[in-house]
Amino acid sequence: MAKTIYLDYAAATPLDSNVLAEMQPYMTDAFYNPSAPYQPAREVRKDIEEARISVARIIGAKPTEVVFTAGATESINLAFNIGGHMVTTTTEHAAVLQAANTHDATLVNVDEKGRVNPNDIKKAITPKTTIVTVSFVNNETGTIQDLKSIAKIIFDERQKREAKGSTTPLYLHTDASQAAGMLDIHVARLGVDMMTLNGGKIYGPKQTGILYFNSSIDLQPMIVGGGQERGLRSGTENVAGVIGFSKALEIAEKKRKTEFERLENLRQQMLDILQKEFTDIIIIGDQKHHTPHILTAAWRGLDAERVLFALESQNILVATGSACAANKDTRSHVLTALGLEPGIIDASLRFSFGRHTTSDDVDTAAKIIVDVIKQELARGKRIK
Amino acid sequence: MAKTIYLDYAAATPLDSNVLAEMQPYMTDAFYNPSAPYQPAREVRKDIEEARISVARIIGAKPTEVVFTAGATESINLAFNIGGHMVTTTTEHAAVLQAANTHDATLVNVDEKGRVNPNDIKKAITPKTTIVTVSFVNNETGTIQDLKSIAKIIFDERQKREAKGSTTPLYLHTDASQAAGMLDIHVARLGVDMMTLNGGKIYGPKQTGILYFNSSIDLQPMIVGGGQERGLRSGTENVAGVIGFSKALEIAEKKRKTEFERLENLRQQMLDILQKEFTDIIIIGDQKHHTPHILTAAWRGLDAERVLFALESQNILVATGSACAANKDTRSHVLTALGLEPGIIDASLRFSFGRHTTSDDVDTAAKIIVDVIKQELARGKRIK
Repeated sequence: MAKTIYLDYAAATPLDSNVLAEMQPYMTDAFYNPSAPYQPAREVRKDIEEARISVARIIGAKPTEVVFTAGATESINLAFNIGGHMVTTTTEHAAVLQAANTHDATLVNVDEKGRVNPNDIKKAITPKTTIVTVSFVNNETGTIQDLKSIAKIIFDERQKREAKGSTTPLYLHTDASQAAGMLDIHVARLGVDMMTLNGGKIYGPKQTGILYFNSSIDLQPMIVGGGQERGLRSGTENVAGVIGFSKALEIAEKKRKTEFERLENLRQQMLDILQKEFTDIIIIGDQKHHTPHILTAAWRGLDAERVLFALESQNILVATGSACAANKDTRSHVLTALGLEPGIIDASLRFSFGRHTTSDDVDTAAKIIVDVIKQELARGKRIK
Repeated sequence: MAKTIYLDYAAATPLDSNVLAEMQPYMTDAFYNPSAPYQPAREVRKDIEEARISVARIIGAKPTEVVFTAGATESINLAFNIGGHMVTTTTEHAAVLQAANTHDATLVNVDEKGRVNPNDIKKAITPKTTIVTVSFVNNETGTIQDLKSIAKIIFDERQKREAKGSTTPLYLHTDASQAAGMLDIHVARLGVDMMTLNGGKIYGPKQTGILYFNSSIDLQPMIVGGGQERGLRSGTENVAGVIGFSKALEIAEKKRKTEFERLENLRQQMLDILQKEFTDIIIIGDQKHHTPHILTAAWRGLDAERVLFALESQNILVATGSACAANKDTRSHVLTALGLEPGIIDASLRFSFGRHTTSDDVDTAAKIIVDVIKQELARGKRIK
């Protein structure tokens, strides 16, 4: 049987074997409750705090500014627990948009490449706005947002509020789940006040993540109880998960620059083959500002779902929409927000590359993808 | 070096090796996002749903009535998200009491053995009460509450409300984290409408758990996003954790009756030795209604914290208070609620037994415990 070529790294990444090795002791001998007072438990507590220090160092934060959460979705929900008016974009992850639904929120449109104009964010900010949230990298299109310009707007707005004597805080949050391991996620350089990361997207364990929050923020816990995580997220710690997340982030950061380049080459390799074979291919997302690990494209008249299953039968795994929409049979809200017509959305495929993707994989996969798409396009024409 | 004798199973249980083995594939090959549409991901989705069916079968629920959460604390917070007036007891876990703090809540006192009188619960219920929550087994005293009588009261109150035309719902929730693997946790036999379980207390992974909720309950999600767990708890599933929790519960239930008996004998063995050596030992908690895995006792004049560290130096690990209070330097609220004077609380130790505790362990530990306590009591007298 042919080797499976996995091209859906944006949906889930395999656990790094070094991460698993690091987690292993906490799943066997070091099982103690980190809040217990005896030495073996205090060792576990110390290991958690060292993991927190490592994460903080990588993102340029203080350890007290890092809360370990059960994944990115919880992190996002926790960030928004500060209340007030929210400004976000129409292409955010479901976690942001669902949370926005329960808030007073303004959704800003993006351009046809999926980029939000920082000035549109500026216009949407009202005196009651407390949080602006824009994901760093979109998981469906790979488009990178201009966070630094948005941060500048937030900074200016804060200055204005201060001058006016307003005490309403204003914070910039970003979901950087798809950016970690690809782009610089140093919070001061980005200019963000809160940041969400996801272990499951950086070869770490699922349902691990963090919320970074600037120490000036009066973060309110969502889950209360024993007072763990400085009262911000109660519950006996997921020790193995915390250790695994920290190690995964460390490795992702170490490999970041070489992986960025390597994946950019793989993406270009795939793009070259597809563009050569299909002159009318529609490349989706911002091609100037994109993450190297995501390539989304559409073919007019194609039934992408059929292609997905045809590719699966040849051991190539790709995506058609955001896997996070939990099997809901709806068109991608992200591609809709880009102004793409339904026919194009239904004809779009997302290829996402990762640490185990090789140039040979891309060659092999691209050939099969080209064949399947050609067959499907021909079939489409016959039906018409 | 002498083998460590761990007598703090109520704080944390080691992961069962069979549970870890069951989790392992989901931490390596089966890493797919369960929401992805291709076959390997659908297999993962199927495994999650089979785990849910297994859990549901064990507790006598429908699979749709089981939500997987990141631990018991989240489960408890989720249960209380229905809002309205809450009735609970003064000896609940911090997660319940902290959540009660953010609700309109009435705290009912317990007797000197830690048992709540069901009639006191009845008296505390107002027409606005929506939730009564009483933990099945207290983690500090081992006292078992009379859930069935409380369930009867809830049932009667519901009938009355119905007769009056009231539409305010009334539900009984229990945190059965310390009961699983010891007592029957079949929800219909208990008469509860919601139940919290904790993987970390049943030799499963930390930060795994469930909320059982009767399908008549209009449960409101706390964490929104991609719509996983039927919209009640969004976020890419902790696949390994879900599988591990399910296996842990299956094993705990299989071993329940034999473990109950075995641990009851070990507890009695420890109690016999202690009572023989110390005629004025104070046994804390209800000795008629207690879980076999917890024995809490106090010695007038003892500095329990000194004993804990003296025992640790001889490789015996015990507890003085609830480890869940995250290192806070406060007296146990549970023992305070029993009406125990501060001097007795500071002189109390909790021994908790588990699957790896042997009769030899208890003999060895008891001898050392007796010696250390005698030395400490003698030292106390010298100081006076």
